[in-house]
Order: sequence, then structure tokens, then C-alpha cells
Amino acid sequence: MKLSDPSATVSTSSSLITRFNLIRKQTLAICKPLHPEDYVVQPIDFVSPPKWHLGHTTWFFENFILAPHLASYQLFDERLNWFFNSYYESQGPRILRTKRGNMTRPNLERILEYRRYVDQHMQAFLDSREAQLPEELKYMISVGLQHEQQHQELLLMDIKYILGNNPLFPAFAEKKMPESGNRPVNYLPVSEGIYEIGHQGTDFCWDNELGRHKVYLPDFEIQDRLVTNGEYLEFIQDGGYENHEFWLSEGWEWLKTLELKVPLYWYPRADKWYEYTMAGIGPIDLNKPVAHISYFEAEAYARWKGLRLPTEFEWEAAFQIHGKAPTLNAFLESGFAHPLASETAEDNQLLGHLWEWTASAYLPYPNFPRFKGALGEYNGKFMVNQMILRGGSAATPISHIRSTYRNFFHANMRWQFSGIRLVKDNH
Amino acid sequence: MKLSDPSATVSTSSSLITRFNLIRKQTLAICKPLHPEDYVVQPIDFVSPPKWHLGHTTWFFENFILAPHLASYQLFDERLNWFFNSYYESQGPRILRTKRGNMTRPNLERILEYRRYVDQHMQAFLDSREAQLPEELKYMISVGLQHEQQHQELLLMDIKYILGNNPLFPAFAEKKMPESGNRPVNYLPVSEGIYEIGHQGTDFCWDNELGRHKVYLPDFEIQDRLVTNGEYLEFIQDGGYENHEFWLSEGWEWLKTLELKVPLYWYPRADKWYEYTMAGIGPIDLNKPVAHISYFEAEAYARWKGLRLPTEFEWEAAFQIHGKAPTLNAFLESGFAHPLASETAEDNQLLGHLWEWTASAYLPYPNFPRFKGALGEYNGKFMVNQMILRGGSAATPISHIRSTYRNFFHANMRWQFSGIRLVKDNH
Amino acid sequence: MKLSDPSATVSTSSSLITRFNLIRKQTLAICKPLHPEDYVVQPIDFVSPPKWHLGHTTWFFENFILAPHLASYQLFDERLNWFFNSYYESQGPRILRTKRGNMTRPNLERILEYRRYVDQHMQAFLDSREAQLPEELKYMISVGLQHEQQHQELLLMDIKYILGNNPLFPAFAEKKMPESGNRPVNYLPVSEGIYEIGHQGTDFCWDNELGRHKVYLPDFEIQDRLVTNGEYLEFIQDGGYENHEFWLSEGWEWLKTLELKVPLYWYPRADKWYEYTMAGIGPIDLNKPVAHISYFEAEAYARWKGLRLPTEFEWEAAFQIHGKAPTLNAFLESGFAHPLASETAEDNQLLGHLWEWTASAYLPYPNFPRFKGALGEYNGKFMVNQMILRGGSAATPISHIRSTYRNFFHANMRWQFSGIRLVKDNH
Amino acid sequence: MKLSDPSATVSTSSSLITRFNLIRKQTLAICKPLHPEDYVVQPIDFVSPPKWHLGHTTWFFENFILAPHLASYQLFDERLNWFFNSYYESQGPRILRTKRGNMTRPNLERILEYRRYVDQHMQAFLDSREAQLPEELKYMISVGLQHEQQHQELLLMDIKYILGNNPLFPAFAEKKMPESGNRPVNYLPVSEGIYEIGHQGTDFCWDNELGRHKVYLPDFEIQDRLVTNGEYLEFIQDGGYENHEFWLSEGWEWLKTLELKVPLYWYPRADKWYEYTMAGIGPIDLNKPVAHISYFEAEAYARWKGLRLPTEFEWEAAFQIHGKAPTLNAFLESGFAHPLASETAEDNQLLGHLWEWTASAYLPYPNFPRFKGALGEYNGKFMVNQMILRGGSAATPISHIRSTYRNFFHANMRWQFSGIRLVKDNH
Repeated sequence: MKLSDPSATVSTSSSLITRFNLIRKQTLAICKPLHPEDYVVQPIDFVSPPKWHLGHTTWFFENFILAPHLASYQLFDERLNWFFNSYYESQGPRILRTKRGNMTRPNLERILEYRRYVDQHMQAFLDSREAQLPEELKYMISVGLQHEQQHQELLLMDIKYILGNNPLFPAFAEKKMPESGNRPVNYLPVSEGIYEIGHQGTDFCWDNELGRHKVYLPDFEIQDRLVTNGEYLEFIQDGGYENHEFWLSEGWEWLKTLELKVPLYWYPRADKWYEYTMAGIGPIDLNKPVAHISYFEAEAYARWKGLRLPTEFEWEAAFQIHGKAPTLNAFLESGFAHPLASETAEDNQLLGHLWEWTASAYLPYPNFPRFKGALGEYNGKFMVNQMILRGGSAATPISHIRSTYRNFFHANMRWQFSGIRLVKDNH
Repeated sequence: MKLSDPSATVSTSSSLITRFNLIRKQTLAICKPLHPEDYVVQPIDFVSPPKWHLGHTTWFFENFILAPHLASYQLFDERLNWFFNSYYESQGPRILRTKRGNMTRPNLERILEYRRYVDQHMQAFLDSREAQLPEELKYMISVGLQHEQQHQELLLMDIKYILGNNPLFPAFAEKKMPESGNRPVNYLPVSEGIYEIGHQGTDFCWDNELGRHKVYLPDFEIQDRLVTNGEYLEFIQDGGYENHEFWLSEGWEWLKTLELKVPLYWYPRADKWYEYTMAGIGPIDLNKPVAHISYFEAEAYARWKGLRLPTEFEWEAAFQIHGKAPTLNAFLESGFAHPLASETAEDNQLLGHLWEWTASAYLPYPNFPRFKGALGEYNGKFMVNQMILRGGSAATPISHIRSTYRNFFHANMRWQFSGIRLVKDNH
Repeated sequence: MKLSDPSATVSTSSSLITRFNLIRKQTLAICKPLHPEDYVVQPIDFVSPPKWHLGHTTWFFENFILAPHLASYQLFDERLNWFFNSYYESQGPRILRTKRGNMTRPNLERILEYRRYVDQHMQAFLDSREAQLPEELKYMISVGLQHEQQHQELLLMDIKYILGNNPLFPAFAEKKMPESGNRPVNYLPVSEGIYEIGHQGTDFCWDNELGRHKVYLPDFEIQDRLVTNGEYLEFIQDGGYENHEFWLSEGWEWLKTLELKVPLYWYPRADKWYEYTMAGIGPIDLNKPVAHISYFEAEAYARWKGLRLPTEFEWEAAFQIHGKAPTLNAFLESGFAHPLASETAEDNQLLGHLWEWTASAYLPYPNFPRFKGALGEYNGKFMVNQMILRGGSAATPISHIRSTYRNFFHANMRWQFSGIRLVKDNH
Repeated sequence: MKLSDPSATVSTSSSLITRFNLIRKQTLAICKPLHPEDYVVQPIDFVSPPKWHLGHTTWFFENFILAPHLASYQLFDERLNWFFNSYYESQGPRILRTKRGNMTRPNLERILEYRRYVDQHMQAFLDSREAQLPEELKYMISVGLQHEQQHQELLLMDIKYILGNNPLFPAFAEKKMPESGNRPVNYLPVSEGIYEIGHQGTDFCWDNELGRHKVYLPDFEIQDRLVTNGEYLEFIQDGGYENHEFWLSEGWEWLKTLELKVPLYWYPRADKWYEYTMAGIGPIDLNKPVAHISYFEAEAYARWKGLRLPTEFEWEAAFQIHGKAPTLNAFLESGFAHPLASETAEDNQLLGHLWEWTASAYLPYPNFPRFKGALGEYNGKFMVNQMILRGGSAATPISHIRSTYRNFFHANMRWQFSGIRLVKDNH
């Protein structure tokens, strides 16, 4: 994986056209190492074919910007417009999500044409009138770019799932990861009090971060780095996956039904523990953070350890006190598509490397404001049966993260780049 | 349904043996109107055969009290002991939950023998030594009685499901319900501030109510009665079940898959709306509270109405300010097994009639203390993918309710006696 | 099980009213040992609740005889008439087959009332006018009685399934079976030639036996008794269930999916092989015929043995040469509900004991005549994906069997009383 | 689709190396119009990705010929050898059939390398020693070529399914089909008597055609061409898909579950009936044979028409009397991948155009000889729950067909090129 140079880490203050070009190019850079065959499949219902991501992100601009706002615009192909709709039910009929992987046409080449066509029209559109665009439309384009960045992360998740479940275990990102040292964990204190939670200011954020509000928190201490493979291995070797006491009831059923005994992408062999990373299959690095963990596993690990997961409010409060600026090597731009070890106490990994499971269900903040119209559907629709993750990952574009960012997945999902950080009660 | 006289509403200060006798008798009184055939079936996986409830509650006392603590005790039948284990996985093998409905033996008669046998031994046990029992054991017996009361409610839920889905719609509770008047809804104010949430004092409570803690709440107003059938009918007639905008994404899928268009037990006919209640099938009473509503439906109704559900913290704070003592006609002891209408502003229905869906996911309170051993497994195991309900219902024994009681169900469940109360933000 | 005395083995020459009374009484005699609870359940989709059989056979007479032909007849209960329809789709709406086991009402008592009501009307109907009834109507009543006899066998199959899958293994037929001796198998020769296959004469038969026609058969030899438990055990102990070579591809998948290793109702324990028979659970009698075998198992056993199953034409030709009259101890009237061993060469077991799997698929005979109307639907509808069995079983009424009787089941079914007889090619 | 010139219709008398080269080239010619993306997917469990066919047919030669018989042979890639095993369970572990469509690697390019590698080694192997090869080995190579020809037909079936279920309906074979005339159907007589059925002589045949034997047949008459789209449309327009009377019970369930109303690849639109053929989507040609029909549909059509399907014995006897030599335009080599209309009485279509459903279940012939070893597994394994089809289709290589060829599919399958011919009883 050869990503665009770091300047691709577009600051939100760049012009729309600059950001548009950098972000759209980055999506293609991510896919570079794939063969045409890799773009097609949907090995499991929650994975989308890479081809589909390329089309769907393009459709966003055609459908919400060009078609309604560029007077002379002709749809590239009416049938493709129909194809690449996804969850926006108010935008009319869509193809069944689970059938996406059967669609060999439009083929990759045709979709790349579609991208070029829409990119050219977007460039022309922005070139001539960016300055005069109404705020609402500029905001809509921003949403399209944030949406594309989300799909960059999804692309990496899906590509990893496609290749990491292929018995040939093909490598994707050839870049060599640095050796990792071993560092004991410490605890960062957070004091009792009322904290303000949620997005502040005028920068972009998703609707679910709005509704900044007060939360009362007791004293607690939070780990200063992510839980490592080595630490998690102790849990496994202590019978973690065989003892129902550590597990939520639904987690135990999940485990038993799927006959799971290790995290996703771990492949125990006779002599050793192996892991599939984007660099291919190899022995597990015990000092790296444990990744591709479900909420069920994170919660069970915490119980076994006698500690607990932070709530999302605790996580955000901890960041307010101990947070640092994001660094490139913890994000998509590193080119590793994999978390690195924290080598110093300085590096507390709150941002990047892995999304951190919290003990909070995904629910609206008090006074959660619902957007009107098609976009308004998005986040509020999913506020049930999912858990919050915080902090971003090695598959997240660095310019896409915020400390108030609320990611969410079902408790059994683990193809996202997710990990664990624990909390200790102070009393 | 002829229930024991109101004195069955045992106060927690009665002696254990008094409470034991009253509660055990009440369970049988509930089942009185059933035919032997009604005790056997499990029409859907979440329903248990009434026969099973009778055996399982008995098993609790045999297994946790008599077998370990009564020196000379002989199991009534080893195979029955094995049969009636349920979720207590640490108590060894159990029969698959979904197979319960195929087990015609032990038959009812045999299970009633089992009850008599265990009751006699429990009476002998308590008779001679209640005074000297160690606190821990007394607590365990209390748990057994609370457990039996929970199963009294489950019995009514399951019986209603079995009879209410039978095309002959047999009546169960013949007692006639009073006529209902129509009363406009009002809003009760609750002021911004820090509230203490969770159980206080030394009376019995479940583990999930412990960990009393502070919560910061903004100003809000809460409805002074439950939402009625008439109000809910407006939602239906406004296309509520046909418009995805009102629904959570999973709710919409649920609706579409099951082709739902009305609450459970509503049976629209050519000319009129009918409802199955325990008194049989009949025209819907528009002034009674809408019952057997899933979280998905409650949430959709709230969106359609432009209001929202209270969090469980808001509900508990509202009760601290506006709560009243429970009254018999709102609970199991009424013999209606159905909610009544609120006729006066005095009667705000916070306790009884219907469990009220809250906007809170079922999660541990801060410092949630986990019990050790077999019983400890219970509540903590289920803290994922469920929503909190508050207040008790017409199927709850009056002595079983508390304002801090946390009930929980999956968002799609609606065979419990559940209803809706809404909240308005004050700003 | 205390069945009516042997005179219940009604000859087809008896008057209709005699046969009606004997057969209807026999159905109740079969059910005698059941508890009300046993009548309700449907542990698997292909099993029907005993209660349902009692109602459905009664419905036949109400629906096809009384309602259309007895002028003043009032339906016993319109809703029950609707309930007990089954496969006769032309008779209007019916309840879903897999939901039958959830219907606790009408309860047993009510269904017995229904039987009494219909029986009284049928008796009155036949009493006064049997002599004058048109042939067509007499034929219809005969069909109703044959139908009831089929359901007598189904009742025993279903009761055995309900009790034999209950971990308490309750006994049903207390009558003690005789000891069995061991007898080596011999082969009966059948010569090459053209044979006439299918029903002949004017006695009752099902439509699928009609279309008597010529079939050319080569020389072959057929075993002179059923395969025994002891012989089948050799197959198991030789790895029969672990070696895919012996199995049809679909049989192997079936086996692996259900994790089968023995016939239905065999329960291997640490030291010994046990079998559930209607007399309860006990050690397997090695000399008795192996029962409750699927076609997949019969076919695999034949392959392992280096022999093959007979076609249904070969079976019928063999009967034409070697057949004997049926004897009571091989049929329902024995009261064993279980096959006995063949003690002498005289007793070749072609009729009774167990239905014998043939290598023939269930297909129409040339010139198969289809009945018109509701009854016509029955047999022809099922002529795909089923295999033919011949000869009747210990659950078949003796007056119900014929050498031309074509029974049929799917290749994976084994709750019927089925067994194996093999053929050797003579060249 | 540009197929090799007609000389590709290799006669079985050609040398092995000639046949090998022609047949292997033909497989690639078939795939020529595909994009790499088209090779990957498995839209439904019974379809295999085209990529897989290319690899699996190659694996046959590597695994059964080169690896055991060419001394110095090195496997091209051990992991690919493992990948491309399919039903030959005795050849060790294989990938789950339903997971094939998730495997993007090995990609097409790699599989084409595999083919080249194996082809070169086979050529070298045959070049130097074809004359001296033992008969058994020559036979094995013949089997490999027949196997490859079977997969040529499967390739066309699967490609059509992949493209014909894509809403863009891409064309595959651009060759224009001739206009069709309308010709009334006539009946060809076959006289009562004993017919010899099964393969005769020393030419290649599959094991299931062996065991030539006598069958007695009554008089009958058989249609002199395939049933047309126009004739089938009458059935549809007469309510054929809405009336359960015409259908086998399992067929009716199948229909209702899948909500079918037309043959596969028929797409009714507002004004007209459309059909997807390999030439793309277009109005249905009423004079062409109706194709992609399941057994359920063929049987229902026959019932509606008051006629019946022939048994496979009748079909073969009819061919013995009325059969003609195969002609190129009825087979794969036509390049249409679609049946043509019969324009003259001369052209009775018994060979080619469409496989014809018979009323015979797929069962062994008397004395069916089982092959030993891995290949022996194939045909005998499937002799249950399938129906016989006869005559070959527009997707069958002309050199692959014989009048004794027994094809078989489950009664609900219709992605094969299947059609209908009816029989009238003569009495």
C-alpha cells in the first residue's frame, strides 16, 4: 500500500477543492495493491466489495451535489446511480445489501470511469464557484468528504477480511513495521466532578457528537496504553474462552455457536501463535496491541482481569486531561494498517492505533438534534444494540479523528480495528 | 383467575415462613384456570411452558436450600432436579431452552407432587429453625421468593402468549374490568440537578440496583399518565407502521420481516379494532394504556409525537419527586392481568399497570458489585443489547415492586406488559 | 396399550357400521395410556400432536359425509372444522402444519366430545340407510375408515417420537415381548420374467396401486427375513457411520449435519447398547429386526454388505411366489408396537413387523388414474423425492395391509417403523 | 462467444493428444468474453465461479495423471491442488462448496498459468508415450476429457446465471440467432414390447449408463419437438402458477416460498414478456423451446395439458426408433448457447437444444457396476432425490452426447438448459 504523501492529511482549513482532490486520490491509493478479482466479493454480509465502496462514495457527490446543483449535469449512467445507493432509504430503491457480492458488473474499469467523470464535474463545479457556494452546500460537500474518509477505513476493514480469510493469506501492505519493545502499563488518574461531554466549536462533526452536556463522574484511573497481545494471550491460556463466568450470556452463546477460541485473524498452529496482518501471515508480536476484538471479548477480558472498560464519558474526560495531538504513525497515513506498540509513557495511544471499546451503549446525547432530510437519517437510526468505540485506528485518516468522535459497532463485530483499554475504580 | 386475598401481598417484614406459604400458594392460584394441555407448550423460544415455571421455582428451593442445608434431605427425583435448572449454568447441564415445549413428562400431576414435597420440607425446615438461620441463608430464601414472584409475572406473560395466539382466543381471567374515562395528559416538571440513583437501605433488592451513585440531569417534564390505546391508534392511522422515518433501522427491519402493523394482541377486523386481553377478545378500549409494545414501537411513537422516552435516571428522579405508594388495582393482585386507565391527575401510574420503556440501555451502575457464586451470575450476564423498563405492571406482585427496580428486555420483545410514557425537553 | 380384542381386525366384508365402530374405538384404545399433556406437542415438524389425529380423523367424516349428506346436520363447531383440515388444500384455509403443536385448545376433552358427536351422527346415518347408500358414498366412508387406520399407525409413530425423545423414557405399551431366538438368513429365489404389478380386483386400494401393468424382471434372490439388530450392529462396529464410501452423498451430509451414529431410538451407553421401545428403555435384543432406519441407512447397509435393496417390483413379485397370509402378532393388534424376530424359515416376515425400504422411487404406475376432487389430490401430489416401502409394520392394523400397498417416505425419515431386507443378484 | 471451429467437435476416434488440445482450448474459448470480475463469484450455492471450473478441470489431470504417472512431475502449487478438489472426498480435505465464491485468490492470471503448466506437461507426457500407455491410464485421461466437457456445459450454465441475474443484463454471446417459424406438434408412435436400455459397445460412457437391461413398455406416442415458449405461455396465462391442482406438493411449496410465476430468465414487463438469453435481454420468441424449466414446472405443465412426461426408458426407446444423428446447430458449437426452434418434422430435436425432463427418478440400472476408487464415487453417490434428463443441450459439446446419456438434477433446479417433451398414452 503506497499512500499519498502526508500532505494528504488534509487540514480542515484547506479549500474544498484541495481536500476533494486529496481525499479522492487517497481512496484509489488504498486500493492500488488489489487485483480486479479482489474488488468483487462479499464474503460475509457485513463486508462490502471494494468495487462498491468506490462507486458508492462517488454516487454521493453525483446524487447530492451534481445532480441537484449543477444545471447541465447528465447522470453518468442511470443504472449505476441506482446501484450505488446504500442506506439512504429516502433516496429510493436500493439493491439488497447481502447481494452486492454477486454483482460482477459494473466492473472495476467502468466504476473507475464513473469516478473520473464525477471528479471532473466536481472539479469544474468547485473551480468556478467555490467562493460563492451557499454554506449549506459547502457543508454537504464536507459531509461527502467525511463520508469518503469513513469508507477509506471500511475499505481497509473489508480488504483485510477478504484477504485474511483466504487460505493463501496474500500480503497487502508490504511496508515493514518497526520492532516493538515491552512497556509495563500505568494508570492515569481522573478526578470526580462534572465534565462537559460532546462536540464544541464550529469544526465539522457528526450529528451524534452534538448536544454537549454535563456528566457527573466519580474518581477513576485509566490505563496509559492499549492492552497487548501478550496480555491477552494470558487470558486465553488461563482458559478465558472456555469459562462462561467471564462472559456476558449473549457473548457466551456467540462464542459457542461460532466455536471461537481466539481473536479474528489469529491462527494458532502446532508450535506457535500466528496472526494475519496486512503484511501477510506471521508470528504474533506480543508487544503490539491486541486487535480485532469484539465487545464480548473486551468485556470478558476486563472481568477476568478484575477491571472494567471505561464509559465513553470517562474516556472523553480522560482525554480532556491526558490527551495528546494525533501522530501520523498511529493512523492510515502510516501505511501499516496495523497498530504499533507504545514505547514510552509519553505515548498513551488515546488517539489512533485501535478504536477502544467503551462500556457505553450507543444512545443519543440529551438534546440530540436530528438533521432534516436524507442525511438526517444516518446516525440516529442506529442508536440501539450497539456499543461505543473511541479514538480512531490505524485505518482512520488522521484528519478524520476527533476526541469527541463516537464510533459504534454491534457487540459481536470484530472486523473493525478495535482494541482494549481498562479502567480501575479508585476506592 | 382467582388470586389469594390481598393479604397475599406479603410485606417484606413478615416472617419467612409466612411469606413462603403465601407466595407459593399464589403461584398455584395464578394457574388455576388452565387445562393440563395449557401447561405444556412453548409456542416461541422466549416463552416457557407453565409446567416448567412450576417446577423451576420449586427446584430453586430444593437445589439451593434443602439439598445443601437440610441434613437428611433426599432429592424428590434426581431427574427432575436436572430438568428444572435453567440459566444457572454453574449448576451443571440443563436442557436446551428451546426444547422445553416438547417435554410432556414429567406431567403436571408429577410436578405438583414435587411442589408439595419441597413445600413440606421447606415448612419443616423453617418451622423449627427460622430464628437461628444464618443471615446468608435467610437472604438466599428471600432470593428464592423474589425469584418465584418474578416467575409469577412470567407465568402471566407466557399464559397470555399461549392463549392469545390460539385462534379460539380462550378467556383466562373472567373478572370484569371497570369502564374507563378519558383524561388529557399533563406534564410533571423535574428540575436540573444532581440526583442519587439506585437502591438505598437494607431492604431486599437485586444486585443491578446497587451502586447508588450521582447523576447530573437537565430540566425536563414527564407525562402524568401512560400513553393510551387511543393516542397510539392515531400513530397507526397516520401511517406510523409504513414510514421508515420514525423507526430505528433495526426496528424497521424487524417490522418488515414480521410484517407487523399493530401491537401484539391487537386484531384489526373489517369494521373495528379488537384486542385480546385475559378476559378474551373484544373491542379495544381507547382510554386504557397501550400495552405489549416493543421498544422499537415505543421509540417510533415518541419520534412521531416529537417527544422522547425518559432515561431510567430521569424516570427515577421523577419518581423521587412525584411518586406515590403502589395501589392494589395496578398490580397482579387486581386479578385483571391488564392495565387500567388513569382517571385522575392524582393517579400518575408511575408504579404498576405497565412497565415503562426508558431510553436507557441495560448497563451496570458505577461500582456495580458482582455477587459471588451461582446467584451472582444472574443479572450481570445480561447487560448488553437490552433496554431498561421501570415501574412494574398489572402482572407484577405488589410486594415485588420498588421505584429502583430495573427490568430489562430486548428491543423487539413485547410479550411483557409494557407501555409508554413520554418526556418533553424544557428549553 | 390395551387394544380392542382381535375381532377389531375387521374384515372388509363386514358392514360399514360394524367397521366404523370397531375402527373408531381402536383409535381411542391406542391412546389410552397417554396423559393429557402427551396429546399436545409437536416436537418436530413431521410429528403431529395425538390430539390432532383424533380431531382430524373425525373431521373427515364430518366434512365429507355428514355435512354434505345428512340433511339436518349442524357442524359441531365451525372453528374446529377449520382446525382439523390438513393437506386437503381444496378444502380451504388450514393452520400451518408446524404450528399445530402450539395449540392447547381445543383441549382433549373437547375433541373427545367432537368424536362422540360425530360418531353418534354417523351411527344414526348408517343405521337407518346403509343399504340404500349410493356406491360412491359408501366408497367415501371406506376411504374415511382407511384414512383413520393410516392415522392409527401415525399415532403410534408420533407417540413413540414424543415419549422416546423424552429423557425420562416413559413406557407406553406394557405388554411383554417374547424372547427371540437366532436364525440364519436364507435366500428365496425369483425367476426372470414378466410380472404383473399393481392392485387387482374390486377390494379397496389406494389410487397409487392402480394401473396394474407388466414389468420385466431378471433372476434374483431375496432374504427370507428382516435384517436384525445384531447384523446391523456389525455394520456400525465396522465403522459404517464413519466411512463416506458406503453412503449416498445426501445421506452423508444428513449424517454429518445431525451427527448421527446409530438408528433412531438407539442409545449407546458406556457398557451396552440400549433401545427405546414402547415398553421403555432396555438393552437391545440382537435377534429382533433393526427398526427406525432411514433409506440412507438401509442403502448404506446394503452397500457395506455387498448386496442391494429390492425394487418395489421385485418385492411384489417375491410376494407373489413366497407370500403368506398376515398374522396378528406382526401387526398393531399384537399390542407390542414393535417387530418380533422370525423364529422359523416358515415365517418370512414379508407382511408386518416393519415396512421394508425398496430401491424404487415413488412414481406413478403407467396409466395411473387420478381421482377427481378433494380426495384425488392426495397420493399423486407426493410423487417426487420419496422412496417406496412395502409390507406393513407392527403399527399397521392387520386389516389395512395388502401386498400391493405402496407406502412412501423421504429418504431421511426414520420415525416410521421401517426395516431392511436385501437382495442378491443371481449371475 | 467465439468458439473453436467445428473441428473442435472431436471425434472419439482422434488421438488422445488431439482431443486433449482441442477440448482444453475450447474451455478457454468459452470464457473469452468474460471480465476478470466475472470469474470470481458464486451468486448461489449450486453455481461455481468460472475461475473454479478452470482450476478444477486442470486439477483432474494433475492429480490423477501427472502426479501419479509422470515420474519427475512437480505439483504446480500444493495449495492450488488442495483448492481445486471438489466432490472427490476420498482425495482428502476440500474447501466448502459454498465458500468458493469468496476466494479472490488464486486470481485468474494465476489459474491460467496453472492451466498452461499442466497442459505443457500433459502434452509432453502424451507426445512421447501415448502409444505405450496402459489401457487403464488412457481410459483415465478420457475420463478427464469427458469431465472437462461436462464442465464446459456447467461453465455456460454458471456464466448465464451470473450475468442473467445482474440487473445490467450484459450480453455474452453476440452471435445472432435465426428467426423462428411456427410448426404444430405431431406425435411419434412407439409400440408395446421389450426394449433393451443402456449403453452398448466399447465407446466411452459413464458408469450409470451400464447394466444394459430389458424393460417392458406399453404403447405410447411422443411429441416430435420440444414444447415452445408460446405453448408454455398459455399455461401461465391460464393461471398455471396460481392453481395448486397442477403441482406436486413439494413443487407448490417451492413455488410459494420463492414467489415464482415464470421460468428462470423470464422477465415480464408492463407491456411484454422478456427473456434473458446469452445475447442479452429481449422479447421472448414464442416459437423457440421453453428453457430453464424445473421438473416441478415440467410436471405441472404436463398435468395442465392432460398429458405426461416420458420415462427415461420410453425416451430411449423412442430414440431407438425415431432418433437422428446430432447436428452442430443444436449444441455448444453453434455458439448460441440457446435452443433453436424446430422448423420441420424432420427435426425432432431428440438430441441437443435442451435436456428433456423425464418422469424417471435417478436410480441404478439393474446390475449397475460400481467403479473402484476415487472415480467410482461419482455417479452412484447421487442416486436419490434427482430426476433424469435426456438428450443434451445447446450448452453440451456435440461429441459429448449419446442417446443413452443420463443427466440428472434435483426437481427444483432450473439453471441447466432444460425443456419439455410430452407423451400421450395410446389406449
